[in-house]
Formats: sequence, structure tokens, C-alpha cells
Amino acid sequence: MPEKTKIARVGFGNIGKAVLRAVNKNNKLHGDMEPVGIITRDPPRVLGSLGGYHGISPGQIYNVDNVPAGLDVDVAILCGGSKNDLPKQGPYFANRFNTVDSFDTHAHIKPYVDKDTGVSMPGYLADMDVASRGTGHTAAISIGWDPGTFSDERVAANAFLPGVRAYAFYGLTERGGLSMGHSDAIRTIGNVIDAKSYTHASPEAIERVRSGENPNLAPGDMHWRENFIALGNDTPKERARVESEIETMPDYFKDYKTTATFLTQRELDEGHKDMPHDGLVLAVGENGETIEYKNVWPNNPTGTAGILVAHARAIQRMNREGKIGAHRSIDIPKSYISPHSDKVLTADFM
Amino acid sequence: MPEKTKIARVGFGNIGKAVLRAVNKNNKLHGDMEPVGIITRDPPRVLGSLGGYHGISPGQIYNVDNVPAGLDVDVAILCGGSKNDLPKQGPYFANRFNTVDSFDTHAHIKPYVDKDTGVSMPGYLADMDVASRGTGHTAAISIGWDPGTFSDERVAANAFLPGVRAYAFYGLTERGGLSMGHSDAIRTIGNVIDAKSYTHASPEAIERVRSGENPNLAPGDMHWRENFIALGNDTPKERARVESEIETMPDYFKDYKTTATFLTQRELDEGHKDMPHDGLVLAVGENGETIEYKNVWPNNPTGTAGILVAHARAIQRMNREGKIGAHRSIDIPKSYISPHSDKVLTADFM
Repeated sequence: MPEKTKIARVGFGNIGKAVLRAVNKNNKLHGDMEPVGIITRDPPRVLGSLGGYHGISPGQIYNVDNVPAGLDVDVAILCGGSKNDLPKQGPYFANRFNTVDSFDTHAHIKPYVDKDTGVSMPGYLADMDVASRGTGHTAAISIGWDPGTFSDERVAANAFLPGVRAYAFYGLTERGGLSMGHSDAIRTIGNVIDAKSYTHASPEAIERVRSGENPNLAPGDMHWRENFIALGNDTPKERARVESEIETMPDYFKDYKTTATFLTQRELDEGHKDMPHDGLVLAVGENGETIEYKNVWPNNPTGTAGILVAHARAIQRMNREGKIGAHRSIDIPKSYISPHSDKVLTADFM
Repeated sequence: MPEKTKIARVGFGNIGKAVLRAVNKNNKLHGDMEPVGIITRDPPRVLGSLGGYHGISPGQIYNVDNVPAGLDVDVAILCGGSKNDLPKQGPYFANRFNTVDSFDTHAHIKPYVDKDTGVSMPGYLADMDVASRGTGHTAAISIGWDPGTFSDERVAANAFLPGVRAYAFYGLTERGGLSMGHSDAIRTIGNVIDAKSYTHASPEAIERVRSGENPNLAPGDMHWRENFIALGNDTPKERARVESEIETMPDYFKDYKTTATFLTQRELDEGHKDMPHDGLVLAVGENGETIEYKNVWPNNPTGTAGILVAHARAIQRMNREGKIGAHRSIDIPKSYISPHSDKVLTADFM
């Protein structure tokens, strides 16, 4: 039996729960990892929702502000959100543990200028590199399907087909892909009690890429957004106001074709309880050379968790090899994320 | 301008010519590589076919048995065949240069028992590791689309979806994928003057994988083979004999459904001058989680060359970093194959 990688989770929302399931599934199949704790802002809530989850006892739930010194963790998977949690939690925990996270604010991975303050910021990659390197830890940042595996595929397709662009499309299935960020944005509008926002890829845009023309496509050419909304005070006038607020909301909806369908909370609960998402990376050369990568997740957190947990293996190994600091998915060889030995990989996967 | 990686080719057949075109294309776009020579068994033939190719002068064509000492090469791309050329040429050149090759005899990458002699062999990975390591060189072995990128995708899909198998299918387009190995095998039959063999994926097998059952599929369940043959003495009796010899040929055709269509050499030349190939890696979980990777090459050598040349970049960098010995595609991070700087990759590809 291999030595087990001890994996803690920071956060226990949708992603955190899916990560715990994925660690247990990997351990059952491969015996190479075990869950050792949940670090949370709200231990009572986590304790209350722990029923049905294996591998964690009540004594292994820790308050984020009071994590015991000397807690035996090989890798902490950071399951918080990119907007409010990870910018602070990421460096804090990378200074203390090896980490894997799914930071997905694409524009803030690199150096950027803060919109509110006008101050130049080093960006998440640099923040995490400094924080982890200072204490000899290793961090895998922006791991998931995009950024993450889609980043790998964009880099590879562009290298294999010189000069060709790799496009990413989301929501190719009939139902589309549920966007948590866009759903949350609608919920900030007054009188909205709940909302679900689905991203749909434009078939016309995909056809243009398939033709090999490498077109210039604005975001609104590539996707449209289908929204389902429950209002507190549901009147025609309120519907019109909310629909207008959605259509004009900058960043999230303004540049896209949008639809708004108003439902009761019960209809929303019953018809939209799943969290499906899917996407495609597509690169096409002028002679029809085509590279495409697609993933379809009936449950998006489960898909993302599978990717996060595989990278915990890589980060543990890289740290032992002295590869400290922050790494992107594109910096990590595929053999490092596998549960299989180099011998098995050569024999069965080449 | 970045320093240019000096790339030589060993062999100047279909792959070698495509590699030269790919080096020139990359250099034009990115300015980071240049062709510095062709090493061949037959310099007069190469000299005769050099018209229309840029970047190589007659003085840069070298006889394989007489390569000048001190030839300034950063990476040699080995463009010979896996059956007769690479088992000897690979270690020979890996001992002398950094190398990239597309050795694709899957069963001989790992340790194996030689069928003819009964002797245990270390396999190509070990042979190349010893040969390159001994002189401080770095080798990328079995680089191409399968083995190569498909190996990456098999390892990743199996890591992301624990316990799920990744299946590879070839020839999904209507025309199918031209198999050079199977075409050559038919040409060994008496009275056959030329042949083209196309691999076709079985749609039924793909559907079974898509259902999430992770089925056991024999090779003959997954693919069938469509053959076009020109005979010297084209009689009904000879057609029947050749068709029977194809159907019963072990390894190549016996376990597959096959078809045989007899044409004149002219018909074969006119209707089958392209070298298309394509393939799919498909992994599906029980809840419908799906990961798929597809490439379509209107010209198979061009597609393979694009992958080989991108890896020359990686091997040059790895060697400078002291990472000597033989590496599989799954050991090489994607950022290493890119023409772009780490800064550009973080800003534009994440």
C-alpha cells in the first residue's frame, strides 16, 4: 500500500463536499489518500451537514481562525470562492500547508490594476508563489476545468497548430451550463429571491471556428444567457424592471443576448436543482486540422473536485522533490496527477 | 528575439519533410527555432527532393553513418520508423544529441519479451534513458498523437474520473484514418502492387462507451478496416486469394471485420493520395461525466510533426535545467512546449 496523502479541505460548500467524496472515492480505489479535516468559518454548520459523509469525525472540524498548531496535513484543498475567500485564504494557507485551489478570476491570476483603488496588484499567482515559497510549501493554483485543464488544452493546441487560436465555449448541451456567478449576480437585484443563470454556446460561432477562419469573436458572439428568476412581489411591472436590470448589468449580462423566465421558488427548486456544466476547447487550422477537448459534468462541483483531488497527489510529490512555490496546471506533468506508478503508466497508458 | 533552438532531422520521409515545414512555420511565427540539417541514409535522394523546402542548404545534408563531429545541434528529431529505424537509431542519436521521436510500438515502450529470441528486453523507454543519460542528454520518446497527446489524455481522464477507463478510437470521419502500417502489411502479399488501408471506428462501440458502462471491448469490437488494393495480375481468382490472405493475417486483420476493394494503380493514386487520420479519447463515468479529446488531421504527418516540433522546445529547456534522460509526453509540462513566455501564458492562456 502506498503512503497516504493526508488531505484537508478549507470550506465545506458544494466544492468542499464534492472534494470529500472524491478523496474517499480515490482512497477506496487506490488507497493513496485520506481526508484529515475540514477547516471552516462555521464549525456548527459543517457538523450539522456531516451526516452521510465518511472519513471525517466531529473532532476533525476546525475553525478557520483557530487551526491547531502542528495539524498533520499534507495538502489543503481550498474550496472557497474566488471573489471573497481565496484572495486572503489562499496566501494564508499556502504559507502554512501545501495547497490546491480553483481560483478562477482569470483577469486576476496575472498582475492587474485594482478597479476600486487604482493600485497595481501582483495577482494571485505571484501572491501564492511568495506565500508558499517563504515556508517551503508548494501550491497548485487555478486548478479545475477552466482555468485548469482548459488552460492545458489551449496551450497545447496553440503549440501543435502554430498561429492557431484555441477558443473555449461553455454550455453546449441543450440545457446549457449553470453559472453560479451569474446566478449570484441576479440575486443581488432587489425583489429577486432566487435565480439560476445558464450559459449557452452559440452554434453559429462554433461553426465559424470549425471553418478554420480563426475569427475575432466578442464574448456576446460566442454565448447567450438563459435566466430563471423567482420574485418576492411578482407583478408584470416588477418583471419588466428586473429583466431590464439584468439586460443592462455590466460585465455579467450587458454584452450578451439574455432571456428571463419568471418562476415560483418551488418551480425553481424542482426544475433546477442540478448543477450541470460543460465546455469545449476548439482549435482549427486553415486546412481543417482540428483539436478539440470537451468535458460534460452532470454535477459541476463533482467534476471540479475530481480535478482538484488528482492535483493534491502532484503537489505532495512536487513538494517532496523540492519544487516549492506556486504552479499552474500547465506547469505540472500529467504523470504526477495519476494514482498509478510510472511502471503502470508506461505499460498501460502509453 | 529569443535564442533559436537548432533542430536537425534524422530521416526525410513523410514525417521528416513535415517536420522541416513545421520548424520553418514556427520560426516564421515565433522566431525561436531554425533547421540546421538533415541526417539521412541516402543524401542524394534527399538532395533531389529538397526543392521547395526552405532553410536547408545542400551542405547541411549528412550521411547517417558519417555525421560530422561537433555538429551544432540542440535537438535532433528522429523521423524514422518504429519497426526498423528507431530501435537502433534512437539510442545512437540520444547518446549524441537531445532527441524527440515518435516511437509508436506501444508494446515495446515498456519491458517486453522478444518474440523471435525469447529474450527479455528493457524496452524503448529504458534504452533511451540509458543512452541519453550517459552523455547528459535529454530525450522525449513516443511523442505524437498516440502515443503522445492521447497518452496525456488517457492519464488525465483516468485521474479526474477515478476508476473510469479512457478508450481510444481511430477513424471517426466518414473516410476513416489511413493506416500506413496496415497498408504496408497488405503490400507484403504476393501480386499486390499497392494498397491503402483505412481504420474505421465502430459507432456502436462508441455508443457503449458513451453510455457509461465502461465495457470490455476487444480490438475487433472497436474498429473495422477498409482496404483498397491494386494487383499486378488482376483476376477473380487472385482477388479471392488476396482477400483471404488479408482476412487471415494475424495481428493486422484477423481479429477485425475487413473489406477489400480492388482498383487499378491509377485509381489508387488519384483517389487516395491524401493521408488523413483522426482519433478520439473518450472516458465516461456512470453518471454521465464525460471527457473527450479529438484530433482530426487532413494530413497525418503534418499533425504529428506539429507535436514533435513543439516538444523540441521542451527538450532543449529541460536539458538546460539538468533534466537529463528519457521522458514521456506525460512527464513534460504543457508550458514547456509553448513558444510563449510564462508571463504571456499566465496573461493570455489561463
